[in-house]
Amino acid sequence: MKFNLGCQLSYSIIQSSTLVFNISAVNNEYQEILDENLQIEPQLEVEEYTDPILKNRYFRLNAQPGKLKVAYQATAQIQPFYAEPDTIAEVLPAELPLDIFPYLYPSRYCQSDQLLQLAASEFGNLKLGFSRVTAICNWIYDHITYLSGSTDQSTSAADTVVERAGVCRDFAHLGIALCRALNIPARFVSGYAYSLEPPDFHACFEAYLDHRWYLFDPTRLVPQNGLIRIGTGRDATDASFATIFGLVQMEQMHLFVKQVQEGESSSQETPGYTVKAIAIV
Amino acid sequence: MKFNLGCQLSYSIIQSSTLVFNISAVNNEYQEILDENLQIEPQLEVEEYTDPILKNRYFRLNAQPGKLKVAYQATAQIQPFYAEPDTIAEVLPAELPLDIFPYLYPSRYCQSDQLLQLAASEFGNLKLGFSRVTAICNWIYDHITYLSGSTDQSTSAADTVVERAGVCRDFAHLGIALCRALNIPARFVSGYAYSLEPPDFHACFEAYLDHRWYLFDPTRLVPQNGLIRIGTGRDATDASFATIFGLVQMEQMHLFVKQVQEGESSSQETPGYTVKAIAIV
Amino acid sequence: MKFNLGCQLSYSIIQSSTLVFNISAVNNEYQEILDENLQIEPQLEVEEYTDPILKNRYFRLNAQPGKLKVAYQATAQIQPFYAEPDTIAEVLPAELPLDIFPYLYPSRYCQSDQLLQLAASEFGNLKLGFSRVTAICNWIYDHITYLSGSTDQSTSAADTVVERAGVCRDFAHLGIALCRALNIPARFVSGYAYSLEPPDFHACFEAYLDHRWYLFDPTRLVPQNGLIRIGTGRDATDASFATIFGLVQMEQMHLFVKQVQEGESSSQETPGYTVKAIAIV
Amino acid sequence: MKFNLGCQLSYSIIQSSTLVFNISAVNNEYQEILDENLQIEPQLEVEEYTDPILKNRYFRLNAQPGKLKVAYQATAQIQPFYAEPDTIAEVLPAELPLDIFPYLYPSRYCQSDQLLQLAASEFGNLKLGFSRVTAICNWIYDHITYLSGSTDQSTSAADTVVERAGVCRDFAHLGIALCRALNIPARFVSGYAYSLEPPDFHACFEAYLDHRWYLFDPTRLVPQNGLIRIGTGRDATDASFATIFGLVQMEQMHLFVKQVQEGESSSQETPGYTVKAIAIV
Repeated sequence: MKFNLGCQLSYSIIQSSTLVFNISAVNNEYQEILDENLQIEPQLEVEEYTDPILKNRYFRLNAQPGKLKVAYQATAQIQPFYAEPDTIAEVLPAELPLDIFPYLYPSRYCQSDQLLQLAASEFGNLKLGFSRVTAICNWIYDHITYLSGSTDQSTSAADTVVERAGVCRDFAHLGIALCRALNIPARFVSGYAYSLEPPDFHACFEAYLDHRWYLFDPTRLVPQNGLIRIGTGRDATDASFATIFGLVQMEQMHLFVKQVQEGESSSQETPGYTVKAIAIV
Repeated sequence: MKFNLGCQLSYSIIQSSTLVFNISAVNNEYQEILDENLQIEPQLEVEEYTDPILKNRYFRLNAQPGKLKVAYQATAQIQPFYAEPDTIAEVLPAELPLDIFPYLYPSRYCQSDQLLQLAASEFGNLKLGFSRVTAICNWIYDHITYLSGSTDQSTSAADTVVERAGVCRDFAHLGIALCRALNIPARFVSGYAYSLEPPDFHACFEAYLDHRWYLFDPTRLVPQNGLIRIGTGRDATDASFATIFGLVQMEQMHLFVKQVQEGESSSQETPGYTVKAIAIV
Repeated sequence: MKFNLGCQLSYSIIQSSTLVFNISAVNNEYQEILDENLQIEPQLEVEEYTDPILKNRYFRLNAQPGKLKVAYQATAQIQPFYAEPDTIAEVLPAELPLDIFPYLYPSRYCQSDQLLQLAASEFGNLKLGFSRVTAICNWIYDHITYLSGSTDQSTSAADTVVERAGVCRDFAHLGIALCRALNIPARFVSGYAYSLEPPDFHACFEAYLDHRWYLFDPTRLVPQNGLIRIGTGRDATDASFATIFGLVQMEQMHLFVKQVQEGESSSQETPGYTVKAIAIV
Repeated sequence: MKFNLGCQLSYSIIQSSTLVFNISAVNNEYQEILDENLQIEPQLEVEEYTDPILKNRYFRLNAQPGKLKVAYQATAQIQPFYAEPDTIAEVLPAELPLDIFPYLYPSRYCQSDQLLQLAASEFGNLKLGFSRVTAICNWIYDHITYLSGSTDQSTSAADTVVERAGVCRDFAHLGIALCRALNIPARFVSGYAYSLEPPDFHACFEAYLDHRWYLFDPTRLVPQNGLIRIGTGRDATDASFATIFGLVQMEQMHLFVKQVQEGESSSQETPGYTVKAIAIV
């Protein structure tokens, strides 16, 4: 599937500030960036960095007081990997690659160490494998109310267990924390999401199963095969779309994701809910 | 039913200290103290105070360095009030006596303000009345593991929702917090409990329904009609069996509750689980 | 000193709701209500209740959907008690009246149990007495930034120690918690405050010293002898100006406090900062 | 300086378990491992992994029920880098290498996002540079009591700000959080520490200044040039000496660090407190 996606961000820079953006789509085996374009107004030097392992792409702007506009657009070809859920086993700590262990540890927003008993009593007796992570997602969907504005940047998975409301980021954090509490490596994924209404950066999570990172989205807001990956990390701290050092006001944010026609529309694959397991990395 | 109950507490006083005890059984319409005895070793002046509304009985000792032994025993006649659960309605804020409102407010260990969404989603759609508080107790029993030593003096209801383990005090705090989050007044009760193993001070809670305080015990450890009331308050802060100012080590604590024979044993009522609603105040 | 004070509150009642107000000035030895007037629009039955010990005055309205206006005004004669700070000693637990102990215990917003070490290291070695509470107020003033909108209804003293910003309510909570951590009984006071800009309900606290409740205000926003007391309690939970059960939107709030001329203005006492200790209860 | 160091760890494995150890000393430009030896009893397959960037060395054991003994010893040559504190500037976000930014973000135990105001008011007006991090360390030393057993595995920097007591790990976490709150990258370091009494794994932290990671130890327990580095990470989650999956009891832990004689003892450098800045990476 081919998507045209991007964002326009407008800021008012009050004092000289540094902004680090993570809005560029990742380029990997399952997500090919066919073309892309970044426009900065006023023209500023753009320093880029790509994480060698995660492929996250960051760029930095040092901006002077005044208006700042950042416009990114790309065309991405997405080829998710599909698998049968029933065939996907958990990888036990005895077999887990040692470079994956950091995704078992608690992080700022995913205090898995505090959720051991909750995870054990709700999911500890379930059959191991993909379906156990699905059970976690179902639990979150059933127990947490999706409510815009109910949380803020300091809200963590432990808070969400108490307060029972949140947005996609909170849903992802709770999913990650519950997985880790069961010794299932899990991590945060941010992206552009086809058909998300209103358009916004989306957050979901990946669990490491059967030696692959599978995608999960406990919000059920969008089909997972319509996600175009931007950032990957331990939690939202690693994948903020904009990290700002200085005095800056956001003025406008506009996102878009459109599917691009390929061949005859009648034969074209479109994003859709599926019972298959999906991986995009 | 008639019970003989009491406790022996031994302390080592390191520096001159003040100790406030709340170990004496309450004397009220449903719980008559037939006789009682308090022994302090060494002999010390005992200052007593009874709360005019709650009837909690406190006494203070100012102790010098050395050993301190406190032995309390009493014979209490318990006559619980029984009612049919189905007939017991909630009292809405529109009708609630204004002196009862403080039991709707959050307290140190019962942050009902943080549990509004959890309470609403789990119990908000249930039929109002006694059975709704029973549903809260069942939820606690099903979701929280009773585990000695899993919590400490700083553990609150919000912590217990996250950590999913606790002792009787934590179960009571969570019950109170969930009731208050639903606008049901609730309060903490400490007492001697017949048949509790190992013997210890017990904690449960009361909810204000149908203009009476009904007793609930989400631990299911002992029959509620075997509770001899000591303290009542917003939460455990108000009903600590010993509040110590100074440097003191507890060395031993021994409690006992025995039923006293009355007439022929064959006809005697004994504490037992019942589906009836119970009030002891 | 004589003050004319009051408030006008406008609400939009979305669904039938119950509102409990605590906006009436207290009538006691140091604060005499010379006249007062309460107007409710539309006319509704007003149920009143005065706490027998604290003298807090509450009234309840059961309101139907539509507009609701509550207007309260009173004339109050304030005669604070003044004392020399140097003469005011702490009352040790060994001597403290037993009915005062609840003000030593932690409460929802004043987790004194978590601040023992902080209180001990900052204030533990100071000379006991009024000046120690002044030192607490100075510490709060120096370490916490007064910042409107920086906190919300769930913010507690422990949060404020971390976040270092708050409003009058948070300043009071922290003062209370630090006092209690040093075994100084302390409680929350809400009131109308002469010369507060912008006009709003004010919060400060009282510490029990030398067998009297002395007033402290770590915000330094207004002279303490210009406070007209409304509510007293363990913390803000007990002294909310409006507790609402139902679906209600506040639309407007207007407060006023004016000094009333008595005799010749040249000889008239006016509220002012003083180094004297002040008690108004 | 040359050190012989190591540890002996004894466990009782109750059920088949996986253990991941991070006890091997790092091998880098400033710390050369001259020889080392790892003994496992019973003999087990040892899987090793070295983080390509941080050089942390992990090994995994899959152990069967019974006793498990792990004995590690190494000889390490330490050549710290010394610099004049006055010459060491902060690196502003505008200049900071983009791969260093993750050390600016909050982590599980270092919620820098909650400490912005505290950091700004205590250190925001200080001269930028090495001395500002020294000021943070001094503040921690002055305000936090080192107290064994006062904290546990869930204690975070925000908790320590409230509770004002902790151990080396807590001191390091608070130092890290305060640095990050000031936009100074900071990270956790674990190691063997010469002259630490009683011997134990030690924790301190590094701040990124002048394009180098400088070492700081707010505990003042040991000279920083006597630290032999084991683990580096965002906080203690990344540098646990043993991460255990399964049912295991630790039975004994013994550590040692001895300086090895080189040439004439009279001319030999020994670890000692210094006003110089120290880096070991």
